[in-house]
Amino acid sequence: MNKRKICVVITARPSYSRIKTVLKSITENPRLELQLVLAGSALLQRYGNISEIVEKDGFTVNEKIYNILEGESISSMAKTTGLAIMELSTVFSNLKPDAVVTIADRFETMATAISASYLNIKLVHIQGGEISGNIDEKVRHSITKLSDIHFPSTKESKQRLIKMGENEKYVFNFGCPGMDILSENDLIISNKIMSKYGGVGSAIDWEKPYVLMVQHPVTTSYGSGYKQVTEVLNALLDLNTYQKIILWPNIDAGTDDISKGLRVFRENNKDLPFHFFRNFSPEDYAKVLNNAKCAIGNSSSFIREGSFLGVPAVIVGDRQEGRECGENVVFSDYNKEDIYKKIQYQLSKDGYSENNLFGEGNSGKLIANKLLDIDLNFEKRMTY
Amino acid sequence: MNKRKICVVITARPSYSRIKTVLKSITENPRLELQLVLAGSALLQRYGNISEIVEKDGFTVNEKIYNILEGESISSMAKTTGLAIMELSTVFSNLKPDAVVTIADRFETMATAISASYLNIKLVHIQGGEISGNIDEKVRHSITKLSDIHFPSTKESKQRLIKMGENEKYVFNFGCPGMDILSENDLIISNKIMSKYGGVGSAIDWEKPYVLMVQHPVTTSYGSGYKQVTEVLNALLDLNTYQKIILWPNIDAGTDDISKGLRVFRENNKDLPFHFFRNFSPEDYAKVLNNAKCAIGNSSSFIREGSFLGVPAVIVGDRQEGRECGENVVFSDYNKEDIYKKIQYQLSKDGYSENNLFGEGNSGKLIANKLLDIDLNFEKRMTY
Amino acid sequence: MNKRKICVVITARPSYSRIKTVLKSITENPRLELQLVLAGSALLQRYGNISEIVEKDGFTVNEKIYNILEGESISSMAKTTGLAIMELSTVFSNLKPDAVVTIADRFETMATAISASYLNIKLVHIQGGEISGNIDEKVRHSITKLSDIHFPSTKESKQRLIKMGENEKYVFNFGCPGMDILSENDLIISNKIMSKYGGVGSAIDWEKPYVLMVQHPVTTSYGSGYKQVTEVLNALLDLNTYQKIILWPNIDAGTDDISKGLRVFRENNKDLPFHFFRNFSPEDYAKVLNNAKCAIGNSSSFIREGSFLGVPAVIVGDRQEGRECGENVVFSDYNKEDIYKKIQYQLSKDGYSENNLFGEGNSGKLIANKLLDIDLNFEKRMTY
Amino acid sequence: MNKRKICVVITARPSYSRIKTVLKSITENPRLELQLVLAGSALLQRYGNISEIVEKDGFTVNEKIYNILEGESISSMAKTTGLAIMELSTVFSNLKPDAVVTIADRFETMATAISASYLNIKLVHIQGGEISGNIDEKVRHSITKLSDIHFPSTKESKQRLIKMGENEKYVFNFGCPGMDILSENDLIISNKIMSKYGGVGSAIDWEKPYVLMVQHPVTTSYGSGYKQVTEVLNALLDLNTYQKIILWPNIDAGTDDISKGLRVFRENNKDLPFHFFRNFSPEDYAKVLNNAKCAIGNSSSFIREGSFLGVPAVIVGDRQEGRECGENVVFSDYNKEDIYKKIQYQLSKDGYSENNLFGEGNSGKLIANKLLDIDLNFEKRMTY
Repeated sequence: MNKRKICVVITARPSYSRIKTVLKSITENPRLELQLVLAGSALLQRYGNISEIVEKDGFTVNEKIYNILEGESISSMAKTTGLAIMELSTVFSNLKPDAVVTIADRFETMATAISASYLNIKLVHIQGGEISGNIDEKVRHSITKLSDIHFPSTKESKQRLIKMGENEKYVFNFGCPGMDILSENDLIISNKIMSKYGGVGSAIDWEKPYVLMVQHPVTTSYGSGYKQVTEVLNALLDLNTYQKIILWPNIDAGTDDISKGLRVFRENNKDLPFHFFRNFSPEDYAKVLNNAKCAIGNSSSFIREGSFLGVPAVIVGDRQEGRECGENVVFSDYNKEDIYKKIQYQLSKDGYSENNLFGEGNSGKLIANKLLDIDLNFEKRMTY
Repeated sequence: MNKRKICVVITARPSYSRIKTVLKSITENPRLELQLVLAGSALLQRYGNISEIVEKDGFTVNEKIYNILEGESISSMAKTTGLAIMELSTVFSNLKPDAVVTIADRFETMATAISASYLNIKLVHIQGGEISGNIDEKVRHSITKLSDIHFPSTKESKQRLIKMGENEKYVFNFGCPGMDILSENDLIISNKIMSKYGGVGSAIDWEKPYVLMVQHPVTTSYGSGYKQVTEVLNALLDLNTYQKIILWPNIDAGTDDISKGLRVFRENNKDLPFHFFRNFSPEDYAKVLNNAKCAIGNSSSFIREGSFLGVPAVIVGDRQEGRECGENVVFSDYNKEDIYKKIQYQLSKDGYSENNLFGEGNSGKLIANKLLDIDLNFEKRMTY
Repeated sequence: MNKRKICVVITARPSYSRIKTVLKSITENPRLELQLVLAGSALLQRYGNISEIVEKDGFTVNEKIYNILEGESISSMAKTTGLAIMELSTVFSNLKPDAVVTIADRFETMATAISASYLNIKLVHIQGGEISGNIDEKVRHSITKLSDIHFPSTKESKQRLIKMGENEKYVFNFGCPGMDILSENDLIISNKIMSKYGGVGSAIDWEKPYVLMVQHPVTTSYGSGYKQVTEVLNALLDLNTYQKIILWPNIDAGTDDISKGLRVFRENNKDLPFHFFRNFSPEDYAKVLNNAKCAIGNSSSFIREGSFLGVPAVIVGDRQEGRECGENVVFSDYNKEDIYKKIQYQLSKDGYSENNLFGEGNSGKLIANKLLDIDLNFEKRMTY
Repeated sequence: MNKRKICVVITARPSYSRIKTVLKSITENPRLELQLVLAGSALLQRYGNISEIVEKDGFTVNEKIYNILEGESISSMAKTTGLAIMELSTVFSNLKPDAVVTIADRFETMATAISASYLNIKLVHIQGGEISGNIDEKVRHSITKLSDIHFPSTKESKQRLIKMGENEKYVFNFGCPGMDILSENDLIISNKIMSKYGGVGSAIDWEKPYVLMVQHPVTTSYGSGYKQVTEVLNALLDLNTYQKIILWPNIDAGTDDISKGLRVFRENNKDLPFHFFRNFSPEDYAKVLNNAKCAIGNSSSFIREGSFLGVPAVIVGDRQEGRECGENVVFSDYNKEDIYKKIQYQLSKDGYSENNLFGEGNSGKLIANKLLDIDLNFEKRMTY
């Protein structure tokens, strides 16, 4: 019997956490064959090359695509997408998958969607239908319109997809597979586990209280990143009682501004309890987030995983504007006083209770099963 | 006073007819500056290079982009889009337009949309919201989701865009500018006017009755083009009373199949009254269509311009499936008997009355005026 | 035992004739593995897609690369090379050959050379060291300097390579493999054999006298092609006694000018004994050339194969300027009177005797054997 | 009177020092127009973005090209060249220079050479004809064969170019313009001047003795960089009396290995007198080199500028193998004992006297004058 070939393209570090249990369920199913493609920043040392982690987790990488044009320039971001289309077209032509899975809303994701569409390969989209600020929202809905099958993460997202004209026969809310890792793993942190991560900055005691900061660039306010991240970092300066864990930003246009902000701050505050990391494995990131006293910045993980875990979060700026979120989240302006005040508010809470807004922790299996069972022989049409 | 810079990207022959009066209205407005970019098949001799026509019409071409990868391969179509993104990113970075206008739904159109979006330039889409078969429909709606301002061609399309979550503040139904040419020009055909077009095949007397055939490839049934066009041609064989005007197909994947079908047919039927043309100017094409006793094939012009002009049309196959159309249209299968029967039915009619479904012939001016007046300083958001 | 993997990249129609016996000798050798890549114009219908011929000859094509940017523009020629580098880098990374073979001097050949060099794969060049006009000469010598192993076609070429600083240990004159086909095959032409080629124009009787014309564009005089080919065609007009066989030009910048010249001439001289062909198999082209009363134009085959076969040739223009040639060749200006005079002179001869300037017809085997035996573990250095 | 347009493409940090006085002489000449293009690693922060320095020096940058594919992969190096060809073809088509100047032998340089050649623009090569190890040598001679006009840096190089078949009418030894900066500027170093460079590592007193280390990757021994640089660094460990100035490597394949070597070493030796810098202006680098007690590694500046200045140098490994050098140079293996011994030998010398092997410090002016006077209307031919 022929296996159904499912090609998953991962183009960025956080997508791996969001898809890992799907990959696992596919490889465990004897009637499915996983074709795994790593591309974009997922392969870059600067953004936390995930290929070693992926292989250590037991997955075989079929293709690696280097498509990131180096250099801070907003047109490079567009060209990077163009290059990815050129490379992925070759890869899909060779691998001949039955379906291609693309995740979320980053700009490289568009390349996966276009290449698969033009090659008449069924396109599967995970995490469609959500609302947020930034170019991500345009990209996310644009991918929806190229996609044949949808696995949104929330009820509201599912309803939005259907409202947009997607056929409900092909829209399945199985929750976000990123939650699965949270429920499957022990999320207790320890210095022993975390000692493998080098990082730079002062020494960290993971078993003592810390806050976590992740601030990504916002492409629609390109050029303001340096100032934005500096406000956040200055707000953290006054949190004497807590260690500060800082992650480097993702690769969107504007990332160099953020990185510069981090470096300048670090040079000026060498002896303070700030520690900077490139990357964690999905499981370890879950531990880091779960044990943070507060998460500050604009990572969508604070909303998604944070809601599941009940981690208090302060979302800074408009990158996540309009996003569906649980009670663990408060929003703040790019203003160090406002940020500080909101952090204090969140620290005064004793955490939040868990919330199943983004699923119950069994999404990977449900998605893999549906990819096996669903009839792929159909032509997508608008419902109105 | 600074002029507002409007960059229009034309990637294919038919788009020029659909945008020409917009270009004219922009150049006539002292507060607007037209930046005109020709790309894709619009520059290729094989598909009717429009650059001479465009320049003769008095427009200045700012950039010419050669991005079509030659060779019959479905992955080349995707790569062509990737290349266009790379080139257009350079062009937009240099031209720095205030808004980019993209037309309809061809695959290169996606490149315009992505490049403009990533460069944070407002994107204007003409002819969004329509329904049709083929990958065109996916592409059309996907572009909608990247676009900031919409000029759909019909009331129904406008309603569909709003239903899809577009803000009605930015959705304007001014009709299709392709109709403007039809109302502005004298559409009487004559041998004198048409003598400038060479073409191949037997001599044609434009002042005597003829039917018009245009059959484009259908990418979602890639590989069947040869058979499809041969059915249509064979149906025409029996129409003894009428001369047959055949246009070469557009450049979508599958075009070589169609072309081969045309060539083989031509070699086998050298002395019959079939005449093959590459290209007409928009105005002359309007004359050709207007005076055809019947239009046969799958060109969207039969539905749009055909409806305005009341030209009897037989739409063959599913390329235009689901499209909103006037009473001038009947549909047929890829089957020479069925096609022949439908043509006979249409020929038995004495034409149809004109229909304003696609506008009243003043779209170009209305669109240009709106592009001048509208506030471009906003962030697009879904309405639900 | 591991086979040595030899990757041969064919980017144009004539290169296949020049390498075919090498391919054959490689596949026949149990210790060699052939990796065959077709690219560029070798895959295009317009220039005589050779992939069917190649497969019918029993070779397996490992990769097909579509890298030709369509459209008459001199910068497209450069971009085409850039694209080929991008695609070939992927191909070589996947195929991991021990050596890459590149042929002659066309611009895509440079892409093969650069990709292999940067990937640290030994580069083998066939037909280096020759002299000619056009950009071909620059490209040829530039490839020499990237190549590790050389198989020039003549004694003079070998000496030139050594003089240029190539190590004579790696320079082997085994003749041109294009000659092998000439000695291995029966070169008698017949209508029966040739009936499979359609072509356009008046009927041809292959068993009666004809002359052969092939005029390629000359990139260094880009823009003059139309005038050049028209002079040649007009010179042929007066050759009443002979049928005229015309081949379409190759794909170099300027090809559209030449093609236009051919088409215009054809439209104006429909009933005259001119017959136009896209392509022949290497063996059939050998027959066509062998039986031509005179070969006119600027194809290098007139010099190479023509010398071996003793076919009278009139080389028009400077594309082959400075090239080593046998006594079968006379040169002419782009001037119809001069061309006509030289053709008359050549027709007055009763052919020429065969000449082994370009080898003795056993090159393929010698080259394949050397590719097996030679130690590939060395670093190239200049000899002075 | 029309100015003659000279387009100079700079693709890497060191090329700017080598061409700066040529740029200056061109801009000072009223009959020449400079068109300056920055590309490749010249624009990357990681490798010392030179665009600010260039603009501060008073030059206008016409185009910036981002063509570096990020990610450690040997095929990215080839693709980077392919991308550069695509971008430069657009740039040259727009700028329409009379001549394009390319410098030295890095892989992006090939892109400049190919694009200019295919666009029929005269190609000028600076620093041709030299001998070295690595792929640089292949690239350098390959560019020679595409170049029309040559400005080699030494008598020996000039003779080699002529021997390779270049026409001596177009080969001019005016020395290396990199020397001009050395003779025009005061080369006394001071803490005041150098305080603007941050760098990382222990504090440095520029007025006290130091040695300088620059170790670039060697692409032909790709994969060994980590070990190589570690040997060099360990050799330096024992030089107690001297401060150590370390520069980050250039961007060739293998650079990540070297960088890792530097980072690992730095983490393990935090308090030792090692200081790491990204970049200096050409003038300041001249000061740094001039005042070094010994220069260690494989930078060609140790041979070129080092010879002019009489700086003792230990060249490690085979990257510069075969290069013409002055008496200031000794060679060493990748072996920390051997390196240490050679450094001690050089330190025991009291410097070397200056040497005019690479010119007398007036090259820029001579080259600019020749670019003005030379007749550009010729076709290059081999001399034999």
